[in-house]
Amino acid sequence: MVEDSYAVAGIGNAIVDVLAHADDARLAALGLDKGVMTLIDAIDAEALYAKMGPGQECSGGSAANTIAGIAALGGRAAFIGKVGDDVLGQVFRHDLSALGVHFPTIPAKAGRATARCLVFVTPDGHRTMQTYLGACIDLAPEDVDEEAIARARVTYLEGYLWDPPRAKEAFRKAARIAHEAGRQVALSLSDPFCVERHRAEFLDLVAQHVDILFANEVEIASLFETDFDSAARAVKELCSTAVLTRSALGSVVVSGEQTVFQAAFPVERVVDTTGAGDLYAAGFLHGLTQGFDLGRSAALGSLCASEIIGHVGARPIADLASLAANAGLLSV
Amino acid sequence: MVEDSYAVAGIGNAIVDVLAHADDARLAALGLDKGVMTLIDAIDAEALYAKMGPGQECSGGSAANTIAGIAALGGRAAFIGKVGDDVLGQVFRHDLSALGVHFPTIPAKAGRATARCLVFVTPDGHRTMQTYLGACIDLAPEDVDEEAIARARVTYLEGYLWDPPRAKEAFRKAARIAHEAGRQVALSLSDPFCVERHRAEFLDLVAQHVDILFANEVEIASLFETDFDSAARAVKELCSTAVLTRSALGSVVVSGEQTVFQAAFPVERVVDTTGAGDLYAAGFLHGLTQGFDLGRSAALGSLCASEIIGHVGARPIADLASLAANAGLLSV
Repeated sequence: MVEDSYAVAGIGNAIVDVLAHADDARLAALGLDKGVMTLIDAIDAEALYAKMGPGQECSGGSAANTIAGIAALGGRAAFIGKVGDDVLGQVFRHDLSALGVHFPTIPAKAGRATARCLVFVTPDGHRTMQTYLGACIDLAPEDVDEEAIARARVTYLEGYLWDPPRAKEAFRKAARIAHEAGRQVALSLSDPFCVERHRAEFLDLVAQHVDILFANEVEIASLFETDFDSAARAVKELCSTAVLTRSALGSVVVSGEQTVFQAAFPVERVVDTTGAGDLYAAGFLHGLTQGFDLGRSAALGSLCASEIIGHVGARPIADLASLAANAGLLSV
Repeated sequence: MVEDSYAVAGIGNAIVDVLAHADDARLAALGLDKGVMTLIDAIDAEALYAKMGPGQECSGGSAANTIAGIAALGGRAAFIGKVGDDVLGQVFRHDLSALGVHFPTIPAKAGRATARCLVFVTPDGHRTMQTYLGACIDLAPEDVDEEAIARARVTYLEGYLWDPPRAKEAFRKAARIAHEAGRQVALSLSDPFCVERHRAEFLDLVAQHVDILFANEVEIASLFETDFDSAARAVKELCSTAVLTRSALGSVVVSGEQTVFQAAFPVERVVDTTGAGDLYAAGFLHGLTQGFDLGRSAALGSLCASEIIGHVGARPIADLASLAANAGLLSV
């Protein structure tokens, strides 16, 4: 095995979030399904943006949020994802580069704009997302940086990659490279509707290629079309480690004969849950690649999730490494 | 006098803020003067952005923040300012339009990008700003929408307009139109260094054209090159109403024989003071144009300032109108 260059390499949609506040009545008036991620085209995105309240822009993207979190914790990380050749693409690149993340993917050439996710945050802190994939459509196997993948202890992939047409090929290529190099592959199921769209392929994928699976309780139940407890048992047969998050109920890590329960970290006020799962994955993967046991990794995941839901946006604001050191989960 | 169309029309630099967290050591390493606004060119902006941490983008601009606040309180408002023909220009326009603000200015044509302000927020909540004016340079007298100005009860101008070359002509034109229509003109001194740069012109301007002056304690002291108390006495001779803000010490409104003291509203935690003065002006002007007395107007200003310093960014997140109604300052 070649020497490690990265703790984690992520592959995902490169998205800038536009976050605005809205109440439930407003969501209903706009015809939006609360709590889920829906794909929309450029025209609908334009029309919906015109009806949206004043926003804040913040780099996002599920796997990219995880990678940003790992870098903020002090881990070496790389990211592969497709931005457009425009200002928002520069913003997305800056926000990863500023954390020291290696981001080798060249921007899309053919005029497609950087992806935007219109995020409506309700007073209960829940988020409803409408995504225009833009330049993400162009992500293809040739964008997979073979060296970065071969040299990363874990390659982390988001389920959302099943939505753009050629990204799944990139995904499979990356999984193959990772395994050939003796590395691990992790997958996040991303969203219950994403699971609905791609259930058969996801089941096959998890069985064939995934070592560490991340899912929330709705996603894992949807994958197996059953309740949470049955799904938690079923997933054991499919992959070696499953990390299942349950919002305020905490999380469960299932790995062979081991089952670890982790309580959620207390949060003063849930402002915006955008990125909660992504940052949980960041803490967990950082722990794992530092050689921590499952319990300490889960605690670090839980801590990172608690930071992100206390403010608007899916990228950490607080100094995650100090936060973790103060909680006794990382050494300074 | 023609019928009112707007409570307030604002003229200012149209800027998108890029907010990032930094500690004092980082500011020093970057050679930045804490707490002030410095103008930088495109090349320096590029270089500084590359060294800046991950950011959040949020529409800004001093007068524009005030106008957004007035609209959020339920006031009819218009804004004049120059964006570039680019994505950030669209973002800036969206964030005002979404509040119902009339924004008639056409974007700059000649390739200049929408202005950006790189804002470094320190753990004490103070902000240090580096502004690249970009398309704001192109604001000229022909951009002044005569009808909007003539039909606004108050025309509100930011002192920062003295920095781009032709904006001061636009400023003077707007003041003339407003006064010919029997309206009032308000000015914010913007920044102590802005006062340093333009002191003689500002003194003349305030004496000749300004009915309502907004300044913080450092700015007003700098204008008269004396201490706060002496400056507060001196400003009485110069214009009919002066609104002087003193951060946690509250504010003082001096108007002819009347002097009103207003305490600052308590804030749980000062996260980011960006926009505090702008939102104070929003509350005060909304009160004044609703026919409130100086005390209630000052209280509304103070309340709006307290909302903005509790979160990152200079545009309100909370529903200002409800907040003011709950505080008994606005009727529902």
